[in-house]
Amino acid sequence: MVETFGQNLQERIRALGPLCVGVDPSRKLLEAWGRPDTAEGLEFFSLAVLEAAAGSAAAIKPQVAYFERFGAAGYRVLERLIREARDAHVLVIADAKRGDIGSTNDAYAAAWLDDSSPLCCDALTVSPYTGVAALAPFFARVTEGRGVFVLAATSNDEGRTVQRARNDRDEAIEDYVLRSVAEMNQREEGLGGIGVVLGATRERPRFDLSRLAGPYLVPGVGAQGATPEHVGRLFERCPEGTVLVNVARAILDSGPERSALRDSVRRWRDNLSTFL
Amino acid sequence: MVETFGQNLQERIRALGPLCVGVDPSRKLLEAWGRPDTAEGLEFFSLAVLEAAAGSAAAIKPQVAYFERFGAAGYRVLERLIREARDAHVLVIADAKRGDIGSTNDAYAAAWLDDSSPLCCDALTVSPYTGVAALAPFFARVTEGRGVFVLAATSNDEGRTVQRARNDRDEAIEDYVLRSVAEMNQREEGLGGIGVVLGATRERPRFDLSRLAGPYLVPGVGAQGATPEHVGRLFERCPEGTVLVNVARAILDSGPERSALRDSVRRWRDNLSTFL
Repeated sequence: MVETFGQNLQERIRALGPLCVGVDPSRKLLEAWGRPDTAEGLEFFSLAVLEAAAGSAAAIKPQVAYFERFGAAGYRVLERLIREARDAHVLVIADAKRGDIGSTNDAYAAAWLDDSSPLCCDALTVSPYTGVAALAPFFARVTEGRGVFVLAATSNDEGRTVQRARNDRDEAIEDYVLRSVAEMNQREEGLGGIGVVLGATRERPRFDLSRLAGPYLVPGVGAQGATPEHVGRLFERCPEGTVLVNVARAILDSGPERSALRDSVRRWRDNLSTFL
Repeated sequence: MVETFGQNLQERIRALGPLCVGVDPSRKLLEAWGRPDTAEGLEFFSLAVLEAAAGSAAAIKPQVAYFERFGAAGYRVLERLIREARDAHVLVIADAKRGDIGSTNDAYAAAWLDDSSPLCCDALTVSPYTGVAALAPFFARVTEGRGVFVLAATSNDEGRTVQRARNDRDEAIEDYVLRSVAEMNQREEGLGGIGVVLGATRERPRFDLSRLAGPYLVPGVGAQGATPEHVGRLFERCPEGTVLVNVARAILDSGPERSALRDSVRRWRDNLSTFL
């Protein structure tokens, strides 16, 4: 039987700690690194971050928007990053927040979670605006060992209007996402392959977070304001190895110098490990 | 002053009718067309659809998921399609449903709506799960003549749980999107550059559709079941030239034969024009 993504991630977190390094080659960061805002700058940046993360972080999370800025040339860099991460045994979570109606989601799942695609990653973030049930083509990939992280509560304040709206069961949308994912995971043995994105900057939802039976991907720590202590409290009753915390700017601000970047990765990993 | 996307689209609709041809090179359609499911097949398909649409349809709408299946190679084809559509004076709406927190949306807006990007289109579909306010970087491109279509009600049934959930003003999410877009458009003269996606398969929302002051992009007609008559009724009070109806499979099923494809485009255009 194929190991689920949840099990695979849990092993990595146990071995390496709960840090996911965000790969966010924004114009601003490339400038700060003294690199051109081009596909070449993107490539240097991405591979440097991968090198610093390898062996110290459970996963990397390329933010696809920053690659898409350069069209096909940016996607070539992303393809290379994914290949090299695989060789370096670093899990890759593509942060693409894809989501459409079912027939289109089939194509997105083929793009990001199918072995034959040059963009094939270990997991993908998806958006439930078209309904959790419409995301079935992504969930179908779980049996192949792939992971999916469904947005529940994002780290930004503006998301509250939609994410705390109440559905016809008088349930907040974020709770509806959490419950729907938990129900799918509970149909399987062990830790499931469907996770959720839950911003560390948010209040605790009504849903009992210890019952997801899948992993959490947690943005909002560092530059966005949440602390490792806060994450620890938010997820205090969750099983070990189920919370993966993304840190991007707070690490990437170290600049391109190899040992400074690696030290920053380890410092964040150690700091997070104290609370998770 | 730069013409808004809404004004530009309205002129095209008045001249050519309310049809937008969906460019959906799915595996299934490529097979039906006797073409390989490769980047080469994708290119043949896309350019054939563009050729059939030019001069007969107001716009084309490439569904980005089908291009992303082939990674960078698929995006190269999309770049070529966008270039050739510009040369053929056909508006291009990238159906990518992008949406993230503000800083990331900056990068998506640069990818799809900035002149310097190889993927620069006339308009882009975006998803409001992170809140309409988080989409500000897309809306900022309106002053450059670009358009944005925010998902309000998608054509699939599964979307209802989220899109009809009620926010803290006791307003359905689809109405919140419509109202927010209308408020932004009403701050400008003439027809604004911010539109919404409203599925033709849906009931009429509570929001008065004639008050958007921006364009509608309407999926769900043809293979998904809605008829031109139904679209006519749904938008009966909207100003002329503000409703753009996407038809994909019902046209693309004609196959690759040039005159059959062109006839199918014209038949749908004429049929829609009767009711809009």
